Amino acid sequence: MTANYHAISSPDKKTMLGRFSLPIFGYVAFALVLILFGVCTTLDGNSVLKLGEGANNRTRIIIPAGANAMMGSYGMMMDATAMCVMGFGFLYAFCRKYTWGGIAFNYLICGMCFLWCHVCTCIIHAIFNGEFVKTEINLAAMISADLVTAAVLITFGVIYGFVSPCQLIVICLLEPLAMKFNEHIVVHYLNTSDAGGSILTHAFGAFFGLGLTLGLGVKPKHIPEENRLTNYVSDTFSLVGTIVLWMFWPSFNGSLLFDDASVQHRVVVNTYLAICASCVTAMVTSHLVHGGKINMLEVQNATLAGGVSIGMSCSYNVEPWVPVLIGGLAGALSSVGYGHISGCMENLGAMDSAGATQLHGIPGIFGALAAGIVVLATTNNQYFAADTVWTEMDDNTNGKQFGMIIASILATVAIAVATGILNGLLIRVPICEKVERKMYINEAPYFELPDDEDTTIKVSSA
Amino acid sequence: MTANYHAISSPDKKTMLGRFSLPIFGYVAFALVLILFGVCTTLDGNSVLKLGEGANNRTRIIIPAGANAMMGSYGMMMDATAMCVMGFGFLYAFCRKYTWGGIAFNYLICGMCFLWCHVCTCIIHAIFNGEFVKTEINLAAMISADLVTAAVLITFGVIYGFVSPCQLIVICLLEPLAMKFNEHIVVHYLNTSDAGGSILTHAFGAFFGLGLTLGLGVKPKHIPEENRLTNYVSDTFSLVGTIVLWMFWPSFNGSLLFDDASVQHRVVVNTYLAICASCVTAMVTSHLVHGGKINMLEVQNATLAGGVSIGMSCSYNVEPWVPVLIGGLAGALSSVGYGHISGCMENLGAMDSAGATQLHGIPGIFGALAAGIVVLATTNNQYFAADTVWTEMDDNTNGKQFGMIIASILATVAIAVATGILNGLLIRVPICEKVERKMYINEAPYFELPDDEDTTIKVSSA
Amino acid sequence: MTANYHAISSPDKKTMLGRFSLPIFGYVAFALVLILFGVCTTLDGNSVLKLGEGANNRTRIIIPAGANAMMGSYGMMMDATAMCVMGFGFLYAFCRKYTWGGIAFNYLICGMCFLWCHVCTCIIHAIFNGEFVKTEINLAAMISADLVTAAVLITFGVIYGFVSPCQLIVICLLEPLAMKFNEHIVVHYLNTSDAGGSILTHAFGAFFGLGLTLGLGVKPKHIPEENRLTNYVSDTFSLVGTIVLWMFWPSFNGSLLFDDASVQHRVVVNTYLAICASCVTAMVTSHLVHGGKINMLEVQNATLAGGVSIGMSCSYNVEPWVPVLIGGLAGALSSVGYGHISGCMENLGAMDSAGATQLHGIPGIFGALAAGIVVLATTNNQYFAADTVWTEMDDNTNGKQFGMIIASILATVAIAVATGILNGLLIRVPICEKVERKMYINEAPYFELPDDEDTTIKVSSA
Repeated sequence: MTANYHAISSPDKKTMLGRFSLPIFGYVAFALVLILFGVCTTLDGNSVLKLGEGANNRTRIIIPAGANAMMGSYGMMMDATAMCVMGFGFLYAFCRKYTWGGIAFNYLICGMCFLWCHVCTCIIHAIFNGEFVKTEINLAAMISADLVTAAVLITFGVIYGFVSPCQLIVICLLEPLAMKFNEHIVVHYLNTSDAGGSILTHAFGAFFGLGLTLGLGVKPKHIPEENRLTNYVSDTFSLVGTIVLWMFWPSFNGSLLFDDASVQHRVVVNTYLAICASCVTAMVTSHLVHGGKINMLEVQNATLAGGVSIGMSCSYNVEPWVPVLIGGLAGALSSVGYGHISGCMENLGAMDSAGATQLHGIPGIFGALAAGIVVLATTNNQYFAADTVWTEMDDNTNGKQFGMIIASILATVAIAVATGILNGLLIRVPICEKVERKMYINEAPYFELPDDEDTTIKVSSA
Repeated sequence: MTANYHAISSPDKKTMLGRFSLPIFGYVAFALVLILFGVCTTLDGNSVLKLGEGANNRTRIIIPAGANAMMGSYGMMMDATAMCVMGFGFLYAFCRKYTWGGIAFNYLICGMCFLWCHVCTCIIHAIFNGEFVKTEINLAAMISADLVTAAVLITFGVIYGFVSPCQLIVICLLEPLAMKFNEHIVVHYLNTSDAGGSILTHAFGAFFGLGLTLGLGVKPKHIPEENRLTNYVSDTFSLVGTIVLWMFWPSFNGSLLFDDASVQHRVVVNTYLAICASCVTAMVTSHLVHGGKINMLEVQNATLAGGVSIGMSCSYNVEPWVPVLIGGLAGALSSVGYGHISGCMENLGAMDSAGATQLHGIPGIFGALAAGIVVLATTNNQYFAADTVWTEMDDNTNGKQFGMIIASILATVAIAVATGILNGLLIRVPICEKVERKMYINEAPYFELPDDEDTTIKVSSA
Repeated sequence: MTANYHAISSPDKKTMLGRFSLPIFGYVAFALVLILFGVCTTLDGNSVLKLGEGANNRTRIIIPAGANAMMGSYGMMMDATAMCVMGFGFLYAFCRKYTWGGIAFNYLICGMCFLWCHVCTCIIHAIFNGEFVKTEINLAAMISADLVTAAVLITFGVIYGFVSPCQLIVICLLEPLAMKFNEHIVVHYLNTSDAGGSILTHAFGAFFGLGLTLGLGVKPKHIPEENRLTNYVSDTFSLVGTIVLWMFWPSFNGSLLFDDASVQHRVVVNTYLAICASCVTAMVTSHLVHGGKINMLEVQNATLAGGVSIGMSCSYNVEPWVPVLIGGLAGALSSVGYGHISGCMENLGAMDSAGATQLHGIPGIFGALAAGIVVLATTNNQYFAADTVWTEMDDNTNGKQFGMIIASILATVAIAVATGILNGLLIRVPICEKVERKMYINEAPYFELPDDEDTTIKVSSA
C-alpha cells in the first residue's frame, strides 16, 4: 500500500550523475579504507598467535577467556552496536516515504563508519601527539567506533532526506574526524569527562547536522508537505528502534569502562534510572502539551532523553534520586521541545527532519549543565570527582570545573556547527549527486520500489 | 491504511477529565517515585567511590571487572529487560486498533514499574521484617524489578484496551506491592521456591488481571466486535514480541542466580529445552484444533507456554527429557486453551484481551503442578531439593513439599484475584479517566493518529 | 490490506491429508525427540547437584559463576540463537504472501532442530566412533545446535514456499544428520578447520536446499508470478532480520571458542571487519548493477556476505586489512549474484526462493577459496596455522592444506546435493502433505488469515 505514496513522484530515469556518483564515491571510499587499514591498523597484541618456547615449538599458548577483561564488555559492545544499526535504523523508519531510506542509509553509515573510525583514531592521534601509532583493532576500539558512529547517525537524523547516499559517504569520512577532534579538545584541554557522550556524541551530532543543513541551504519551506507525513505502519516500525535504544542505553554509556567494576556498575544503574524516568515524564508531558492525546513522535524520541542527559553525570557517585530527577526533567523538556521548539526553529528557517535537536541537542546540553550543577552542589569534591579528569589537577575547585563544563559545551557547539557548515558546503560540489527539493524525504530516486499496483486494482474492484 | 480503522469512531474533543487526569496522576506518581527514591533507596556499596588510605589520598581504588560476580548476569538482565519492553510490548501489538496502545502503554508501564519496584522492595521488607532498610540499587535489584514488572505486563495482557493510561498508572503503583506481598507469603511461609516465577510472576499476573476485570465490571459483550480484530500487519508485529520472549526466556529464569554457576547453567538448559518443546507442540496442536490451519494467536502465545511452565522446576536437577515433556505438554495445553477454553471463559462473562489466562495463568499452574509431581516422583529428596527452601527444614518429606506447592498455588490465585478486584474497584473513582465501552480496545482517544486520508483518495482514484 | 493478496486463491476446505498429516508427523517427531532424549542425552556434569562430604550432608556445593568458563559465551550463544529465530525468521518475511509462513515455519524449524541436534550428536558419534556416549546438554551443545540449525534455516531459504510444514518436519529430522556427517568428514578426514562454517554451515545449507528442489522437482516456471512479489511492508519486516543477522554475526563465528580468549577475540574482530565491508560494497554494487537504484533484496541479503565468507578464515592470525578485503569482495560478488546469477540459474531450471545460493552458497565457497589463498600466501605456516587441525600433522605444507580445502569444498557440495536430492525424493511420499503448484509461496493453506474485508469496504466507500 504505502509504496503508492512514492509512485506518484517517482522519477523516470536516472541521470549519469545519479547512476555513477554513488558507485564512484563508494568504491573510492572503500579503497581508501582498505589501503589506510593496511597503513594505520594492526591486530591487538593479545589476539596475535603466540607459540610456546623453544626453536621448533608449534604449541600454541592458550589464553583462558577469563584473562581478557575486555571481553567482559563484549555483550555491552553488542548492545551499543544494536543501538546504532537497529535502534537508530528503525527509529528513522518513521516517514512513510523514507522508511527504507532511513533504515538502509543508516545501515550504510554503520558499515562505513565502523571501519573508518579506526583509521580516524590513528590520524587524530598523529595530529595531536605528533607520532604515528597503528590503531589496535580490539573490543575497546570497536566500542569507541560505536560511540563515534552514533554521532554520525544523530547527524543523519537532522539531514534525513536531504542528502543523497553519495553525499552521505563524504559525511561518513569527514564527521568522525571532526567529532574526534572536538573530543580531544574537550577531554584533554578542557579536562571534562563525558562517559556517555552528552555533548561529545549527542550534542555534537545534532549541531553538526544543523551546520550541515545551513551549509546545504536546506529550508523547511523547500520540503513538500506530503513527504513529511508518517503513517500508522511506519510509525510502528519506528517504535522498534525506540525500544532497542531505550533498553540498551545503559550498555552504551558503560561499555568502555570494562576495567573498573564499581564505576561500570554505577554508570549502568544511573543510566537505567534516568531513562526510566524520562519514559514516564515524556509521555505524560506529551499528553499535556497536545491537549489530551499523546504524540507518537514524542513516544519515539522524547522518552529517550534521559539517556542523553545522564551521559555526562552517569559516572558520578550520586544517590539514586539524582539520575531520576535529571532523566525526568530531560523527558519533559524534550517533549516540550517537540511540541513547541521544533515549530519555532522551522519558523527561523532551521530544518531538522527527525528532531535530533530536541532529542540529542537540547537534552545533551541540559545534561552537561545538570552535571555542572551536581559538581557545584557537592561539598566534598572527592565525592564524585575521582571519575573526572579534573581531579588529576592540583588546583581543582567546584567553580573551576563548572566553568570547564560550560567551556566544553560552547566549544562543542562551535566546532560542531562550524565543521558541519564546511561539510555542507563541500558536498555541494557538482560531482556529488544532490537531492532535488521536490524529492526531499522521498526515497524513490534511490530504491527499486515494489510495484503494488495489483493491490490497488483488487481494492477498487471490491 | 490501518489508521482508517480508528478514524470512524474517533472522539471529537477530550473532556477536562480526559485532558488532565493522566498528567495529574502521572506527575503525582513521578513525584512520589522521586521523593520515595530519596527516602528508600541508595547506591550499592560496591559502586560507591572508594579512595585509597591516608588523610589526603585522592587515589580511587579500582575494582577489576572480574571481581563483581553480579556483572556476570548483566547480559541476562538485559535479555530480561528486552523481554519486558520489546517482548511484551510487540506481543501486544496484535489488535489492529490497539497496536500503538499495546506497545506504548506497555513501555509506560516498564518505565514506571522499573523505578517503583525498588521502593516496593523497601516497603515490603519494612512491613514483614519491621525494620527500615534502604534498597540498594544494583544489578540484582534491576533483575528483580524485571520479574515484578513482568507480572504487571501480564496483567496488562488481560485488561488490554479496557483501562485508560491514567488507570494504568494506579495499577503500576499497586500491583507490585500485591505481587511482592504474595511472593513473601509463598517463599517464606509456604517454603516454595519458584525461580522462574511460574506462579509468582505468571499465574499471579494473569489472575490479578482477571480480578481487575471483575472489579472494573468489564464483560465480553461490551466490546465492539470490530475492535477485537487483528490484521496481517499487526499480527506480524506481534511476532516480533513472541520471538524476543521466546529466545530470551532462559535469561529470564536464570538471571538472578549469578552466584552459582551450576544452578544457573541448569536453569538455562531446562528452560531452553522446555520452550523449544512448546514451540513444536503448540503449532502442531493449533493445526489440529483449528481443522488444518494454524492460528496466529497461538503461534504468538502458546509457543511460549514451555517457558511459563518450567518456571518452578527449572532449577531442579532432572534429566533433560523432563523439561522436554513439561514444555511439550504445556504448549499443547495452551493451544487447546486458546482454541477452546477462551470461548468458554467468555461465555461465563470473564474477559481476557490477549489471552493471558491461556498463556500465563493455566500453564503457570500446570508448571507448579508438574514441579509438585517431580517432587513426589523423586525417591531421594536430595536429588533436587537442595535448590528449594524446603530442604532447610528438618522434617521434609516429598508429600509435605507437594502439599506446600498446592497451598502456594491456592494462595497465589486467592491473593491475586482479591487484590485485583480491589484495584479494579479503586480505579473506578470519578477522578480517573475511564474508557467508554464503545472505545474498548481502541486507542483513538489516547493518540494523535496520522491522517492517512490521502491514501484513501489515491486508492479510490486508481 | 496485504491479506487480500491471499484471499483470492485461498482454498475452500482442507483434505484429510491436509488436516492430519502435520499433527501426525509433528506428534510422532516430538515423541521421537522425547524418547531419544531419554536415551541419548544427559545433564552436564558441572550442572548436576553436588553435596558436601559426609554421610548425611545436605549442604549443596556452590560453584562460583566465574568458575564456569563456558558461561562466558552465554551472551554469544544468545546472539547466535537470535540470529536463528529472529534473524532468519524475519529475513524470510519478504514475500507478501509468505510473511507469516517465513517467520512461523522458521520458528518451528528452530524449536524442532534445537532439540533434535542433541540426539544427532549422539548418533553421529556412535556411527563414527563405534561407541555410545550420551550427549551432555550444556552451553557448548546449545551453541553447536545453533550452528546446525542455521544450516537447516538456510536450506529453508531455498525451498521457502515449496514444502508443507509436514515436509519441513521430515527435513528437520534428516538434514542435521547429513550436515553433521559432512562436518565429520571435513574436519576429521580432510583436516580442514571452519570455525564460522563458510562451507560446513552456509554452503552445505544452500546446496542441500538446491538438492531438495531437484528431488522435489520444483521448477521456476511452476511458480505463479504474483506469489513471488514483495511489498513495501514485507520488505521492511525482512530488514529486521537482516540487521539482527548483521550485528550478531561476530557472536555466531566466535561463540564456540570460549576457552581461548586470544582466538575468540580475533574471530570477533575479523568477522566484524568483514561484515562491515560487505555492507558497504554490497549496497554500492547493487546501485551500479541496477542502473542507479539500490535493490532491496540485495540490501537484505548481499550485505551479509562478508559474514559468510570470513567463516573459514575468521580464526586466522591476519592483519585487519585482510578481512576487510575478503568481506568487501564477497559483498560485491553477492550483489552481482542477485543481479545476474539468480536469473541464469532460473533459466537453467534451478529454483531458489530467497536466493540462499547467492548469499550462502557462492560466498561460502568464495570464503573457503579465500582462506585457501591466505594459506598459500603465508610464508611461515605457523603464522596462522596453529588454529587449524592441519598443524597437528607432521608433513604439513601450504600446498597440501590448500588441496585439503579444495577437497573439503568438493566433498561438501557433493554430500549436500546428494543428501538433499534423497531427502527431496523421500518427502514426495503420499502420506506427506504436498504444496500444489498454484500455492507455491502462498501461506493461505496453512494459516487462518485475518479477514480484512471491512477495510476494502471502507476504502471503496471513500
